[in-house]
Amino acid sequence: MTVHLVGAGPGDPDLLTVRALRLLQEADVVVADRLVSAGVLALVNPAAELIPVGKDPSGTSTPQHEISRLLVERGRRHPVVVRLKGGDPFVFGRGGEEAEALTAAGVEVAVVPGVTSALAGPAAAGIPVTHRGVSSAFTVVTAHQDPATDTTLDWDSLARLGSTLVILMGAARAGAIRRRLLAAGRSPATPVAVVTAATTPRQRVARLTLGELGDTPVANPSVIVVGEVAARSVLGRGTLDGEPLLALLADTPPAA
Amino acid sequence: MTVHLVGAGPGDPDLLTVRALRLLQEADVVVADRLVSAGVLALVNPAAELIPVGKDPSGTSTPQHEISRLLVERGRRHPVVVRLKGGDPFVFGRGGEEAEALTAAGVEVAVVPGVTSALAGPAAAGIPVTHRGVSSAFTVVTAHQDPATDTTLDWDSLARLGSTLVILMGAARAGAIRRRLLAAGRSPATPVAVVTAATTPRQRVARLTLGELGDTPVANPSVIVVGEVAARSVLGRGTLDGEPLLALLADTPPAA
Repeated sequence: MTVHLVGAGPGDPDLLTVRALRLLQEADVVVADRLVSAGVLALVNPAAELIPVGKDPSGTSTPQHEISRLLVERGRRHPVVVRLKGGDPFVFGRGGEEAEALTAAGVEVAVVPGVTSALAGPAAAGIPVTHRGVSSAFTVVTAHQDPATDTTLDWDSLARLGSTLVILMGAARAGAIRRRLLAAGRSPATPVAVVTAATTPRQRVARLTLGELGDTPVANPSVIVVGEVAARSVLGRGTLDGEPLLALLADTPPAA
Repeated sequence: MTVHLVGAGPGDPDLLTVRALRLLQEADVVVADRLVSAGVLALVNPAAELIPVGKDPSGTSTPQHEISRLLVERGRRHPVVVRLKGGDPFVFGRGGEEAEALTAAGVEVAVVPGVTSALAGPAAAGIPVTHRGVSSAFTVVTAHQDPATDTTLDWDSLARLGSTLVILMGAARAGAIRRRLLAAGRSPATPVAVVTAATTPRQRVARLTLGELGDTPVANPSVIVVGEVAARSVLGRGTLDGEPLLALLADTPPAA
């Protein structure tokens, strides 16, 4: 009886790990974020109970304590329960909180790391987050909170760091991110890439500068890359805007 | 005719992606870093030409231009060439440079992102790199260069940032990392975790403080986590030092 916190990767089912695929096929219960792609959900054991959680189409979210309660309850009754999260379960997925709740309730918990979209998003656009002579570090943040009022993150030091900055969940705050980074001294000429629906057939890549970020709406879900590497496209022709780089399976928004 | 830059993940063969596994089984040629685990190499098509590159047991490295030349040459002659790198190919793997060399030579190149040990290492020790109320960002660096003289990275801003810091390839410079971060104002009481041989049966986890980092030797390969999350162990009993958390296959150092 174990609850497995499993990373679903960035969207392309081929980017699931071997262990994640096996667990999806063996699962008795799968508690899946609504963000997880239809291509991945199609691989779930057809006999499993599939419970969608997270933000529904109306924008209402399942409360975190409700998800934890559900995991504890199912974890006590079924041998293989999978908690399926987009990307990696410990990168802004609140996986740590769910693991703590399960441990506190005496339910065994295991983690299966996944391919994070913080890396796969840039890679799919031909952008290496580190590149010799260009960037020797990268920082991953969310813009879940407004950068103008965010007290959980030191945006000044972040801007001064100068190396690659990868922003998840930043679509709705693109303009606020620009203003905050410019106020902290980043140049408006800093290259930016916006990778939308990375690794799916709907993938689109926009190249711009920090001074232009937010001038046009950024679609959800997008990964925003800020820094010199964002101007690169090391994979050549395959990285043209709008052209998926990876061989992909069909992917449509999951039914709620 | 494509050269695939493929992430081998952190060591456990079960953490390969589905696409990486398929490419290893179909490959005509596999050019593999010597760091890649024996468990992963055991999955390579037995009929493939397997070429080890990178640091050999004597400490001598294959020069980067030699690896690029080899990839171009094999890429022109064989349908499926795999360049296999530990973790993710664009995280300190010089994958970007190899992709540029292949593109410049007119050889088609594709990337297959992998599970980076920067995330899987901490996760295997029960450490979420982000955790609500504790850390809302993480930065990944290498200590390939001596932090005391490194001009490619702003260690002062890095120290001031305060969120989770993940250091790869830092085993040999643990003491220098401590001195540089303390000099930049990080508290000696900052929690540190050192995860050695993450996700393999030889995995070991040490918990200490920044003020103690480097007092005892750090074995290779290790992931060093600095920050409040490093004191956490969200997976409960399974995270006791020395106890592998993930179900693992046998893994021994690859034959050179």
